[in-house]
Amino acid sequence: MRQEKSRLDIFIDRMVSQRACLDHAAHLIAALEGPVFELGLGNGRTYHHLRATLPDREIHVFERNPTAQPDSTPPEDHLILGDVHDTLPAAGERFGDSAVLIHADLGGPNLQKNDAFARAISPLVEPLLARGGVMVSSDRMYFESLAEIALPEGAVPGRCFIYRR
Amino acid sequence: MRQEKSRLDIFIDRMVSQRACLDHAAHLIAALEGPVFELGLGNGRTYHHLRATLPDREIHVFERNPTAQPDSTPPEDHLILGDVHDTLPAAGERFGDSAVLIHADLGGPNLQKNDAFARAISPLVEPLLARGGVMVSSDRMYFESLAEIALPEGAVPGRCFIYRR
Repeated sequence: MRQEKSRLDIFIDRMVSQRACLDHAAHLIAALEGPVFELGLGNGRTYHHLRATLPDREIHVFERNPTAQPDSTPPEDHLILGDVHDTLPAAGERFGDSAVLIHADLGGPNLQKNDAFARAISPLVEPLLARGGVMVSSDRMYFESLAEIALPEGAVPGRCFIYRR
Repeated sequence: MRQEKSRLDIFIDRMVSQRACLDHAAHLIAALEGPVFELGLGNGRTYHHLRATLPDREIHVFERNPTAQPDSTPPEDHLILGDVHDTLPAAGERFGDSAVLIHADLGGPNLQKNDAFARAISPLVEPLLARGGVMVSSDRMYFESLAEIALPEGAVPGRCFIYRR
């Protein structure tokens, strides 16, 4: 009946792809030790999912202004408050290159803005990832040393990206 | 790996069910004449989907405070501004019982609040629906004369409800 995808279609593709990529990433990092970083808390649904999927991991959430409901907000000592342009370099000093999974859903409605943001934070994210670690993003990132890897079954090309060191 | 559904899982189920029910409803009303009502614009994704699915229908959106992006906002003469406790009865005077599809996604995070709202608006929605018309809702509604009908393939029980006069 429809010719083109609606915004609802695209949104569902994005959410389904995000979940498929995160669940796939959880398998890829199973043998690695290290923390998980969630860039942006939003309403906390993805953090809630990460915690359910990786119950034994330290999950640190980078957020400027946390507004999610309590069951989807990390404890204070796992919330890294501030602008990621500042907090990502600071995380390098604290955690080195120990992160085994970093997830970012920058996805606002403005694609150009998302892309500019992805370009700006790529060099800040790259040095945080452990060898074998995985970055999952809803936007294309711009890494020098990380390889884009194949999407898992169920993920829609262009709606999610996975990179691995 | 996971025992229980995460908030992300539940949200995906809700979005997928909403789309499945709306697409199913579009078939059910294909032979009927009359307008479509969307209760609440939100970010406009579902309105965008309805317009793509039903390009030849009049779609009226009931919203107190429209904030969606322009490509997902109806033209001014199809936007019914105000509180639905007032605008639904007024729509009865303007449209009678001619609506062939009414959709509502009341879904805030507070389930008790959603249920109270569903109870309050059910008697306001019920008289607007044409014979054969369909109501799709993300919450259980409380109708006297409308029958709950089976969900289409792909919809998850409890995440969406369909009623028909």
